[in-house]
Amino acid sequence: MPDLRSRFDELLRRLGEISDLHRVSSLLSWDQETKMPPLGASARAEQLATLARLAHELDTAPELGVLLEELGELEESSERESFEASVVRVARRDYEKKRRVPSELRAEMTRAGSLGYRAWLEARAAGDFALLRRHLERRLALMHEYVACHEPFEDAYDVLLDDHEPRMRTADVEAVFGRLKDELVPLVAGLQEPVDDSCLHGDFAPDRQREFSLEVLSRWGMDNSAWRLDDTVHPFASTIAAADVRLTARFDRENLTGVLSCLHEFGHGLYERQVDGRYARTPLQAGASSAFHESQSRLWENVVGRRLSTWRFFYPRLQKTFPERLADVRLEDFHRALNRIAPTVTRVDADEVTYPLHIVLRFELEREMLSGEVAPADLPEAFDAKLCEYLGVEPAGVVEGVLQDVHWSDSDFGYFPTYAIGNVIAAQLWERATSELVDLDREFERGEFGSLREWLQEHVHRWGRAFEPPELLVRVVGGPLDPEAYLAYLHRKVDALEPG
Amino acid sequence: MPDLRSRFDELLRRLGEISDLHRVSSLLSWDQETKMPPLGASARAEQLATLARLAHELDTAPELGVLLEELGELEESSERESFEASVVRVARRDYEKKRRVPSELRAEMTRAGSLGYRAWLEARAAGDFALLRRHLERRLALMHEYVACHEPFEDAYDVLLDDHEPRMRTADVEAVFGRLKDELVPLVAGLQEPVDDSCLHGDFAPDRQREFSLEVLSRWGMDNSAWRLDDTVHPFASTIAAADVRLTARFDRENLTGVLSCLHEFGHGLYERQVDGRYARTPLQAGASSAFHESQSRLWENVVGRRLSTWRFFYPRLQKTFPERLADVRLEDFHRALNRIAPTVTRVDADEVTYPLHIVLRFELEREMLSGEVAPADLPEAFDAKLCEYLGVEPAGVVEGVLQDVHWSDSDFGYFPTYAIGNVIAAQLWERATSELVDLDREFERGEFGSLREWLQEHVHRWGRAFEPPELLVRVVGGPLDPEAYLAYLHRKVDALEPG
Repeated sequence: MPDLRSRFDELLRRLGEISDLHRVSSLLSWDQETKMPPLGASARAEQLATLARLAHELDTAPELGVLLEELGELEESSERESFEASVVRVARRDYEKKRRVPSELRAEMTRAGSLGYRAWLEARAAGDFALLRRHLERRLALMHEYVACHEPFEDAYDVLLDDHEPRMRTADVEAVFGRLKDELVPLVAGLQEPVDDSCLHGDFAPDRQREFSLEVLSRWGMDNSAWRLDDTVHPFASTIAAADVRLTARFDRENLTGVLSCLHEFGHGLYERQVDGRYARTPLQAGASSAFHESQSRLWENVVGRRLSTWRFFYPRLQKTFPERLADVRLEDFHRALNRIAPTVTRVDADEVTYPLHIVLRFELEREMLSGEVAPADLPEAFDAKLCEYLGVEPAGVVEGVLQDVHWSDSDFGYFPTYAIGNVIAAQLWERATSELVDLDREFERGEFGSLREWLQEHVHRWGRAFEPPELLVRVVGGPLDPEAYLAYLHRKVDALEPG
Repeated sequence: MPDLRSRFDELLRRLGEISDLHRVSSLLSWDQETKMPPLGASARAEQLATLARLAHELDTAPELGVLLEELGELEESSERESFEASVVRVARRDYEKKRRVPSELRAEMTRAGSLGYRAWLEARAAGDFALLRRHLERRLALMHEYVACHEPFEDAYDVLLDDHEPRMRTADVEAVFGRLKDELVPLVAGLQEPVDDSCLHGDFAPDRQREFSLEVLSRWGMDNSAWRLDDTVHPFASTIAAADVRLTARFDRENLTGVLSCLHEFGHGLYERQVDGRYARTPLQAGASSAFHESQSRLWENVVGRRLSTWRFFYPRLQKTFPERLADVRLEDFHRALNRIAPTVTRVDADEVTYPLHIVLRFELEREMLSGEVAPADLPEAFDAKLCEYLGVEPAGVVEGVLQDVHWSDSDFGYFPTYAIGNVIAAQLWERATSELVDLDREFERGEFGSLREWLQEHVHRWGRAFEPPELLVRVVGGPLDPEAYLAYLHRKVDALEPG
């Protein structure tokens, strides 16, 4: 046992180095999107590539495999939720996954992704999907090679999904998404005229939007000692360390979208801020999965951030920030505008009710492309058809349609579904939280958000990646992924907007 | 030869990785001093330590030594100033120096430096030099161990000096500093009453100082595509890539020191910005030495930045920026105030004439500590005695006196002298530049600084680290380090201030 202890320390040393390299890469990416002078781009690409190469070497070092083998004994003799067992378990899973893929294939995939990204920009500029098609075909071929490294599997898509949502099966997603589709397509088709949300549009000085956002976030738990908020083009959250969390935002003068997006990124940031400090510099120090991460951003943006009780506290402050726009707008009207439901062509503009259908159609198309049922050449048509069938809208062209998202050009399949699974998990967590914390609305009205924050820390955040998503979900809500809480939540939302 | 070419490519690949790691570390340090939330500090220290460890492994990899050995043939068959010969020559020198020092000793020195830094903070807080003494003794002992790794040598101090000023000998510095002392001590003793510089003090809004500084720097050649300027506590310049140069500044409301310090940091930044683009990701991509770097910052801050012709262009703009302070101050009075000479206790507050004496006394004390002539316990007394002898001033206590600089607590000896050698080189370069560019003052008056910038690029900057300082100096000015141009420059400065 004393020898196992020293082997475990050696494991922590190696994992610490790996973790450092990944965090350093995050800082470089954050800097690239927020601070870097534009001409720094090509050197930055080299720096990131070098870090990735070194991290990959450490990630897949045979000595790491030997250590993990030896430490099986320590894992077995420790409680499942102990630090030691969790570190060894998660590190071994990561190691085994990464060892399956030859470095050359990985490098080729990265290269194809970056060529695909450039092709996407060109295709958008030219309004011509054909410019992307060849790249999409190449990327599909590489995905098949990648999938083949992971035999045996039930469904090829399982392999891709597992990279974002460990242990999640395609069949589970299919069941949940089928239920969402059955319920939401008719719901959307029967929607009334959308409410008037003109109070959210007009002239909102970006600096004041930022100030107001910071006021909300500091009430929610952000502080200058461990967080930052910077400007960027496409907002994201980045964690350089548990005590160094960086949110980014874009405040457009024409609307308040930037404020909502801050609330969203806060959810991501809070998750990593509240991971158990002991997990620092280990593979446990992150969110459990993409969907769990998204559940946190959606919870704070949508469930808390579009809630009447929340705005009872913040709306007077927002009115003071923009008196010329909002002094004469009633809280109730502002709140209804925030919760407006109306089908859109563009996913990122979608409201809570129509959003999941955007994801369902992308999930279906990814599967159909992977199986060969839909060829890249036929993608634009298939995309538009589903958009019309599920949401009753029609894009004006490919730029607004199939080229609207960057994901298919530069990332592998399996990521899109986690957005909607995040919504589903958020609703399950919220249902559970409100069954235990019965006074939340009264607290929100007083500007107090600590109970919810602490509940999330206790039940979700602190565990980091110690448990895989299905296990974590069972531990928190007592059951598997289940869309009913989410559907009930959406029905309540629609009902509340009915003209009363 | 085709095989040598592929070996050379392999060398470039390795050197590229090493260079990337060092640049990434620079970015982490820049971020730490400008953006990082304070609680991120301990994780940042781990990240920097990991990068240093990996860089050291690559720096000293035996495979690198083999490659450099094999490439001796390529070096010999190429011109001395060719890319190939320069890369192999400089990389070999770096490799051989780094291989001499065991990793454990390096780690111990880093550790002692960081303990020393903390002890320095405590000693300053308590006003008690004794709190630092033990650490200084430990650091001296380690310096002796370090020096011993470099046998044979003429003078132990040569070894430490060489880390900052390659091929510079202690004897050369001693000769130059002896001459400076002989000339400047009596000059300072005979100084008139200092000129009135009250126009430089008062109330100067920091934001407007920044704006004005950026106006000057953009005239000098800074632009947003490849440069940044951020706030920090102790200003510095950092190069993340030749096209990603970051200056930092501190603008205090009470005076214009922050503006001058921007001009200083610009000199450092411009140097690396103008290194030959072909040297990117090789050990050639940096300034030739600490003193050469300092020569550039001093040239732009002092020679150009305190020059009458420069201010003929910028002063009306500065008056417009601070009309309430400067509208009634004549250009000539402002310019005299900028060039005020008066002995100070504090090095960083010193003017151009007294500054070198602060350095001479530190150089002498470093040599005396290294030889054992002065024990750390006797340092405060020795420090005060020299300050009185050379500058006629007396510190109010140890905090203002021997504890004023951080260098002896956390860095090795040999760095201080490069500050004054930088002044000497700057004067030699300026003498040479003005002999070739005869209209500089008329250009400066029109706000044109391109000729000087291009001259420096052509003769100094583009060569990066290709030549060691003594060789580079001979190539540019035709002779060795020589204090006469500097002394003549200082005499002119003093004479110009005489009440006329």
